Amino acid sequence: MSGQIYDDNNIFAKILRGEIPCHKVYEDDDTLAFMDVMPQAPGHLLVVPKSPSRNLLDADPAALSKTIPVVQKLAKAAKEAFDADGIFIAQFNEPAAGQTVYHLHFHVIPRREGEPLKPHSGKMEDGDILKANAEKIRAAL
Amino acid sequence: MSGQIYDDNNIFAKILRGEIPCHKVYEDDDTLAFMDVMPQAPGHLLVVPKSPSRNLLDADPAALSKTIPVVQKLAKAAKEAFDADGIFIAQFNEPAAGQTVYHLHFHVIPRREGEPLKPHSGKMEDGDILKANAEKIRAAL
Repeated sequence: MSGQIYDDNNIFAKILRGEIPCHKVYEDDDTLAFMDVMPQAPGHLLVVPKSPSRNLLDADPAALSKTIPVVQKLAKAAKEAFDADGIFIAQFNEPAAGQTVYHLHFHVIPRREGEPLKPHSGKMEDGDILKANAEKIRAAL
Repeated sequence: MSGQIYDDNNIFAKILRGEIPCHKVYEDDDTLAFMDVMPQAPGHLLVVPKSPSRNLLDADPAALSKTIPVVQKLAKAAKEAFDADGIFIAQFNEPAAGQTVYHLHFHVIPRREGEPLKPHSGKMEDGDILKANAEKIRAAL
């Protein structure tokens, strides 16, 4: 996965095309947000711009400017929905930084005092739990 | 440090007012970027909007939209300057998420294969090294 190529068969491109399902939390003309299937904490979601870029490094700055207010909106909703003490925003570029899917995405991760994060790309969460968590966040939007 | 109050005596507010120095990397009308004095990796820098907000949760969305293209610009420059394999963007909101200074900031952290991150808010780096690293990134802008 070296280089800076955008592969339009990456899993998030397939989600954006509706070819595979996701637990959707929010959508507008430019942005989609859905639950991370390997959450590092309850309520861990991803915000992706619809326009294709491998990561932050090759993104259209205008797309970034549209995406970050959505990251904020979802951060506030996730904090409320999970009664979280804080929110961690993480954005990984290239494998050395922890990127595993090569379509730009922002992680929005609710944090609670004394609860350590689970590992990134760890264990697949139960679908019913992801569905319920997506509903909780949508209700807080 | 509980609650959602903006304290204009936080250290980044003092840096923005020029009351204490920083190793500046970039500045425009809305944004300042400078070296993190406790870097998690060589080249670790911070991007802060000049407008006051405690963190992402209370920020003006318009300020966020101006800040994120600067994060991108600095990420690209830091990657080039440090011949990094990847870039990690981290943004912490509230103590439970790791926030230690209560003015919104984005961490831009160069990553190299096989080199683990040092702890967040770990050891103070030598000023001459920070100065040289700031110069390297400015040269790549």
